Amino acid sequence: MNYEDFFGDALSGLHREGRYRVFTDLERRNGRFPHATHHSPGGQRPVTVWCSNDYLGMGQNPVVLDAMHEALDRCGAGAGGTRNISGTNHYHVLLEQELADLHRKEAALLFTSGYVSNWAALGTLAGKLPGCVVLSDAENHASMIEGIKASRAERHIFRHNDPEDLDRKLRMIDPSRPKLVAFESVYSMDGDIAPIAEICDVAEAHGALTYLDEVHAVGLYGPRGGGISEREGLAHRLDVIEGTLGKAFAVHGGYITGSAKLCDFVRSFASGFIFTTSLPPAVAAGAAASIKHLKASGTERARHQERVAQVRARLDAAGIPYLPNDSHIVPVMVGDPVLCKAISDTLLDEFGIYVQPINYPTVPRGTERLRITPSPLHSDADIDHLVGALSAIWTRMGVEQAAAE
Amino acid sequence: MNYEDFFGDALSGLHREGRYRVFTDLERRNGRFPHATHHSPGGQRPVTVWCSNDYLGMGQNPVVLDAMHEALDRCGAGAGGTRNISGTNHYHVLLEQELADLHRKEAALLFTSGYVSNWAALGTLAGKLPGCVVLSDAENHASMIEGIKASRAERHIFRHNDPEDLDRKLRMIDPSRPKLVAFESVYSMDGDIAPIAEICDVAEAHGALTYLDEVHAVGLYGPRGGGISEREGLAHRLDVIEGTLGKAFAVHGGYITGSAKLCDFVRSFASGFIFTTSLPPAVAAGAAASIKHLKASGTERARHQERVAQVRARLDAAGIPYLPNDSHIVPVMVGDPVLCKAISDTLLDEFGIYVQPINYPTVPRGTERLRITPSPLHSDADIDHLVGALSAIWTRMGVEQAAAE
Ligand SMILES: Cc1ncc(COP(=O)(O)O)c(C=O)c1O
Ligand SMILES: Cc1ncc(COP(=O)(O)O)c(C=O)c1O
Repeated sequence: MNYEDFFGDALSGLHREGRYRVFTDLERRNGRFPHATHHSPGGQRPVTVWCSNDYLGMGQNPVVLDAMHEALDRCGAGAGGTRNISGTNHYHVLLEQELADLHRKEAALLFTSGYVSNWAALGTLAGKLPGCVVLSDAENHASMIEGIKASRAERHIFRHNDPEDLDRKLRMIDPSRPKLVAFESVYSMDGDIAPIAEICDVAEAHGALTYLDEVHAVGLYGPRGGGISEREGLAHRLDVIEGTLGKAFAVHGGYITGSAKLCDFVRSFASGFIFTTSLPPAVAAGAAASIKHLKASGTERARHQERVAQVRARLDAAGIPYLPNDSHIVPVMVGDPVLCKAISDTLLDEFGIYVQPINYPTVPRGTERLRITPSPLHSDADIDHLVGALSAIWTRMGVEQAAAE
Repeated sequence: MNYEDFFGDALSGLHREGRYRVFTDLERRNGRFPHATHHSPGGQRPVTVWCSNDYLGMGQNPVVLDAMHEALDRCGAGAGGTRNISGTNHYHVLLEQELADLHRKEAALLFTSGYVSNWAALGTLAGKLPGCVVLSDAENHASMIEGIKASRAERHIFRHNDPEDLDRKLRMIDPSRPKLVAFESVYSMDGDIAPIAEICDVAEAHGALTYLDEVHAVGLYGPRGGGISEREGLAHRLDVIEGTLGKAFAVHGGYITGSAKLCDFVRSFASGFIFTTSLPPAVAAGAAASIKHLKASGTERARHQERVAQVRARLDAAGIPYLPNDSHIVPVMVGDPVLCKAISDTLLDEFGIYVQPINYPTVPRGTERLRITPSPLHSDADIDHLVGALSAIWTRMGVEQAAAE
């Protein structure tokens, strides 16, 4: 077996399909978001970022940065150990309290990322509940899928956002078996939102635990940023609410919240929680400050929604079609990996606009897209520039255009 | 199914076995390591930490902290996205170059933790190489085991640090199949060191890839901190060297290094690499500064080894037995979870000394221990205090004592 040849062939396949990924080397500029510096092969160039998941620009909020500087000065760089072995810092404890309060749950448990929180919590719950059956939404995130796979539990996939299909699937399962329904609130690539109440109704009727990933909603929805479940007054109906500290909260890490016993159970049995260095104190401090700020302030959320509406209105006027949805995500569909990358490259090279092309395996083949994420900090001029650039490219490249209203 | 009862029962089982884990709520004090503040139920108390994996005290090195402060000021808090979607920051690129250079490899790939690097890299390599067979050391870390499990590849476990058993196992496998030998350099709980050259000889004879976890060795061994593989001039014989940024380098994150194609392959196919927010720029900057410092400075490593020898000599004189090994880890064996926790509690409550009891599943049942990790910053007085406290407890509790030499 020639391993190098095997790796090389696999990479050539990606190139042939037009989905070999080239990372864009950015330097975020504190205080100037969404403007950044692109370290391109030809030198440094200013760019406007239109695809960040720092949805609210909290990554440069002084409240967050001050908390991080202070924790660095106070506690130093890293945590120095796993949570059990010298790595529980007071900032972790405070952050877990903040998170439990955010979702009005008894407890919270921190992980090193949202990915690890899904993987470890689902893997442990579904793996340890004897005979557990997992009901998984067809469009669940890779981290949930990997967690369910790791659990070795029986798994049924229900149609995306379809409580009736979930009900049909649950009816066929022995009522005495433990069951776990896993789904998301905002699906990040299409931006559609789950019918949480209806899914909870069905789950409850069948005695199933409910597990909701609010990664693309925490900080962004609900009067205190508790996500869609808070906005709709449904948090109490979910056994687990999972989230990230790396998107709207703009730092790093992940978590689950739930009952004290459930969190203690995962804490005690999850390999991905136990056997890893905990987050740096400064990261925990920054995340706690970000959450606390967004609990009290609705300004960022209101401005965010206004900017999203503005981008959509301008795209409509320019006849650039996008997938409609009720969230903050604006997917401009292209449907071909090569064309999608060509558009993205042109935006970057000619217009200084950075929107990463999204391709398989992040989205299904044939649904390649530019995923645009407006933030409260994108100005009218930024929007003008984006829509102007897209229009120019659409005309030049002959991309299908919607009839301008 | 009453889920709360199930969780409650499982937790009661842990209490009954004496291995329910209580996290020690610490506040690390920058500039005063290994001294910290313990937030105990009874109030704040000063403690000396003797079980940190910030092995060299780099977590308070001004070089590291300055780099983190500067990156925070420059780039803000988080990365804002996955590596592919707006989350590649220039600090990640520089850190990957630093890591490739550390191990003299063509390339490196960053992950959000050492755990994730093992899980994702082993899961991807063993899972995608067609018909791959994994040979895994019997004492490999949980993160490697989970990665191999996730790959669904055929797996054979060879006897711990036993190249002959590895050879026997490899002989029985079809020579044409891809094979991967996964092992560690320093095993963290016993502190023993793998016979890397002999394992490489065997792997090479059978055309197997070699994958070495140097998590407890990077920064600590070798003239530039490249680990045991560097110290023994063997780095070029390993296809993958994996490490953490969270222990001797004292920040957070994990990585693999290897050929450009191998790293690009993992970059392109590993779910745990692709679908997660990348590390904060400040974390990457701090880790790069730490690595760079330890490449040039041997002072910390020399002092570390001297302190370890000093602790051992003092334990010998006091007749406190520990597991001998050739590394920096000093395991004082207790062999019972309840006694081990009682000793640890007494050290903390009466002496202000923090050494977490290590129990199952971190070590096998019956091998519960106090895992002592001296650092360059533990003073003679700290050592006196530790050994004095242990002697007092050993006498009082009637723990078996070695004949004092
Ligand atoms: C739905 C969903 N869940 C979980 C994650 C993982 O969160 P994190 O980036 O904190 O690892 C992501 C994306 O990264 C996601 O889109
Ligand atoms: C041998 C070994 N590999 C990997 C890891 C995981 O590294 P990290 O703490 O960076 O997740 C650890 C411990 O945490 C370990 O002991």
